[in-house]
Amino acid sequence: MIEQFVAQSIGEWRSMRSGHSLAFKQFEEIVSTIKIKPVDLNDTIIEETIKKSSLNSCIAICPFSIEWLAESSWDNNKEEKNMNGKSILVPINVMNNEGYILRSLGYAEKVSAISKFNFLNDGTIILNTDYKQTIAEERIWFLSENVRCRSSVIRSKSSKAILQTSFASEIKRLFINE
Amino acid sequence: MIEQFVAQSIGEWRSMRSGHSLAFKQFEEIVSTIKIKPVDLNDTIIEETIKKSSLNSCIAICPFSIEWLAESSWDNNKEEKNMNGKSILVPINVMNNEGYILRSLGYAEKVSAISKFNFLNDGTIILNTDYKQTIAEERIWFLSENVRCRSSVIRSKSSKAILQTSFASEIKRLFINE
Repeated sequence: MIEQFVAQSIGEWRSMRSGHSLAFKQFEEIVSTIKIKPVDLNDTIIEETIKKSSLNSCIAICPFSIEWLAESSWDNNKEEKNMNGKSILVPINVMNNEGYILRSLGYAEKVSAISKFNFLNDGTIILNTDYKQTIAEERIWFLSENVRCRSSVIRSKSSKAILQTSFASEIKRLFINE
Repeated sequence: MIEQFVAQSIGEWRSMRSGHSLAFKQFEEIVSTIKIKPVDLNDTIIEETIKKSSLNSCIAICPFSIEWLAESSWDNNKEEKNMNGKSILVPINVMNNEGYILRSLGYAEKVSAISKFNFLNDGTIILNTDYKQTIAEERIWFLSENVRCRSSVIRSKSSKAILQTSFASEIKRLFINE
């Protein structure tokens, strides 16, 4: 199932994303392009990503990279550093549709991270990631072959308070033939 | 499970909602108050709602009402008529965590409607509603007792094109003690 999820995700996506800061009742709107490409299992970056993790041994499958490039934002206070970036994602130790994904850069905090993933019975993938100060839950589901939704919830690790939610509608633009 | 979902939903919610018009790449932002109250099974409105539906016989459980009041919108073109309203919702013929919900006013189109519902294995409720011109899928899941998320997808019935998605983050404000 992770193989199918990755295969469906490969491509170039145009993303409309809304963020909700619950405590401040603030909206954020971002349009971006997201490029998802397969990465060869023999690429040295895979071995490096595994070595950097705390895991001694693991079996990797269907690694991929995500590159994001924000085109515009309605929020002028948005820090630029979070707007563009690239991350390598390596699914490991997959059994019974559950497993882990090593990330060279995290989503909620820009450090390497390990996400635990599982699938709901309708094919929605749920990713849980423990960061230093926050816990993130992402869920991604496909509306059709070329449209997917992605929601996220970020909680404070200390207070468990929900800091931010977000929702992205993503439309596939091009297949990458390189 | 529908009983638990309705019980958790009873209360007054502050909702931050973002809409994405996919074809026009337009964002919409709405802050509203949503009041969800139980309705007595013996209330004549329940019988009326069932009579108005195309269903001859059905067993209703835990009916409730939803009242929504928009507080502000960043979109000046938003038509006022959709901003405030009230709907009676009557779950019927529930078996194995699936069933139908009669609505005195629909979500995507402002007519009475019948939604089919089911639950995912994490407790997320999915509502599918066939309108005259559109098909709506809503999913609602709780992040905690007092915070829930609600996403929707509206498709054209004729072309199957995805017209709009939306996402709401909702925080419970008060319990209704009346």
